[in-house]
Amino acid sequence: MTDAIETDVVIIGAGPVGLFAVFELGLLDLKCHLIDILDRPGGQCAELYPEKPIYDIPGVPMVTGQQLTEQLMEQIAPFHPEFHFNEMVETLEKLDDGSFRVVTGLGTTFHAKVVVIAAGGGSFQPKRPPIQGIEDYEGNSVFYSVRKMDDFKDLELIIVGGGDSALDWTLNLQPLAKRVTLIHRRPGFRASPDSVNKMKALAAVGALDFIVGQITELHGDNGVLSGATVKTEDGTSEISATRILPFFGLTMKLGPVSEWGIELQDNLIPVDTEKFETSVPGVFAIGDINWYPGKLKLILSGFHEGALMAQAAKRIVSPDERIIFQYTTSSTNLQKKLGVN
Amino acid sequence: MTDAIETDVVIIGAGPVGLFAVFELGLLDLKCHLIDILDRPGGQCAELYPEKPIYDIPGVPMVTGQQLTEQLMEQIAPFHPEFHFNEMVETLEKLDDGSFRVVTGLGTTFHAKVVVIAAGGGSFQPKRPPIQGIEDYEGNSVFYSVRKMDDFKDLELIIVGGGDSALDWTLNLQPLAKRVTLIHRRPGFRASPDSVNKMKALAAVGALDFIVGQITELHGDNGVLSGATVKTEDGTSEISATRILPFFGLTMKLGPVSEWGIELQDNLIPVDTEKFETSVPGVFAIGDINWYPGKLKLILSGFHEGALMAQAAKRIVSPDERIIFQYTTSSTNLQKKLGVN
Repeated sequence: MTDAIETDVVIIGAGPVGLFAVFELGLLDLKCHLIDILDRPGGQCAELYPEKPIYDIPGVPMVTGQQLTEQLMEQIAPFHPEFHFNEMVETLEKLDDGSFRVVTGLGTTFHAKVVVIAAGGGSFQPKRPPIQGIEDYEGNSVFYSVRKMDDFKDLELIIVGGGDSALDWTLNLQPLAKRVTLIHRRPGFRASPDSVNKMKALAAVGALDFIVGQITELHGDNGVLSGATVKTEDGTSEISATRILPFFGLTMKLGPVSEWGIELQDNLIPVDTEKFETSVPGVFAIGDINWYPGKLKLILSGFHEGALMAQAAKRIVSPDERIIFQYTTSSTNLQKKLGVN
Repeated sequence: MTDAIETDVVIIGAGPVGLFAVFELGLLDLKCHLIDILDRPGGQCAELYPEKPIYDIPGVPMVTGQQLTEQLMEQIAPFHPEFHFNEMVETLEKLDDGSFRVVTGLGTTFHAKVVVIAAGGGSFQPKRPPIQGIEDYEGNSVFYSVRKMDDFKDLELIIVGGGDSALDWTLNLQPLAKRVTLIHRRPGFRASPDSVNKMKALAAVGALDFIVGQITELHGDNGVLSGATVKTEDGTSEISATRILPFFGLTMKLGPVSEWGIELQDNLIPVDTEKFETSVPGVFAIGDINWYPGKLKLILSGFHEGALMAQAAKRIVSPDERIIFQYTTSSTNLQKKLGVN
């Protein structure tokens, strides 16, 4: 167990439900590490509808996904959760003493007493464009996200897509890349008009290329790209590029959860409604990924589930401690933890 | 059934959980009437801690009971709930067709398809201190809660009690009152040591008076207070004051709920966790008044319970209608109901 990060709780998924679980666990003095495949907190809220209003958070007549995420981050800040973004949990192993070993695809290893799966609809994975042989270039020359902009400095890039991600990265990478070519299959965009206008202005002065068309073939060797053939209304042309960034949206996949020995039912994790524990004691599932009679995939239900789960988690982490149920409104003790007293 | 108010749902209790139930029922086109013994919405939140911060509403790092109530009222406004304040439900009768006849102490009668009990701890009333004739001053000079701090500005106050309410209000009202005298029957306190220390520090510098003793007599005329006689170890003394705030705790009374033929257990109403239905089909119980394994008396749990209850209520009111579960973020239909699209 050398090099493993020791923690009370590993939370898989940093969407709103995973974030609020930090609060309920924190009130009970449990320390949390969160792992998410996205590059920031908020899950679907931040990824799918950051600027769309949500109307059904109780006591909050209107909030965007981004605002809700920010407010939850503020609410849990006193508990100093630690985040591991751009990582996906690959293996979850129960050890002889009942604790868990959790390992991500990048090899980050955790040793935790409790695991909370708050993975929503599963892991978000980029949709692969229908270009033959593209998988041979993935990780080397084809990337579905930008972790560090500097990785693309002074290179010839092709960006593919018509949504906000494609347009945002076109605008952000254009100043530092050697050349950016944006390819979209039709002249219209789903992206914000403001970004589209900026892109067109740059194309008009020759600072980038915009092509209406589709990539039909990749050229290169051993996963190292040299260019692509693009089919347009006027025929085909070849574009020189060493990197391609396709932004075709994300698709939800249950992912490795199905390999952890947890009972599943229609790609959901059945839980009880007392503790929201899975078929594996010590592993809990809250939010959209779980199922029980009456289940509604509402953020507010995930919040409730996290609160009840936290009580059960505390009993696992501190079996000999008497848990006194307290309210933030009246308990000086809880208020001290929150840093407000 | 003449003169009965016809409605889909009667909600007993207009605390935060009863209020949010209007939202979830409203999204499903169910019309609600709410009945509460208090004179305004908010329940315990508004009555016991209107100005005290609540920290555990998900996505809301800090909110007072009053603010939460106002935000919920704003959130449910599109559904035009109708309120019946200062009324207590006396009888609940199931009719042959499965609908309900609900009658208040004042005789207001409702005919509803569904009844939701969201009555918190029942009807609660402040404990009256054993001082002869105190009821003559209630509402005029004697108050058991602080609705608006400004009502006590520049006045001579006596605060009585040794718990958090007494200490908190002593500290909160001291800066704006003309003079505050805290009276407690013994030197020890149930309140948080921090508040007690602050109070003693203020007493030490003469910013307020603290007396170990008991009020034996009130002085005044026609409900208008001028002072009180206090008995201490050293004898009796007279204190000038125009307001007395006794904080002897609240007594929660389940009230008539126990007479409606609903199964109870330790003064709580057992429910399932799928629909939160009581032993009487068509009667639901949500919030602090219900019980199920794992139950926590959290506002957020009552919100969740209301959401699941609403689905079951809809099936009772519209048995032949297919319910399509929709999200406020994405459904134009729901957004129209909310008046935002």
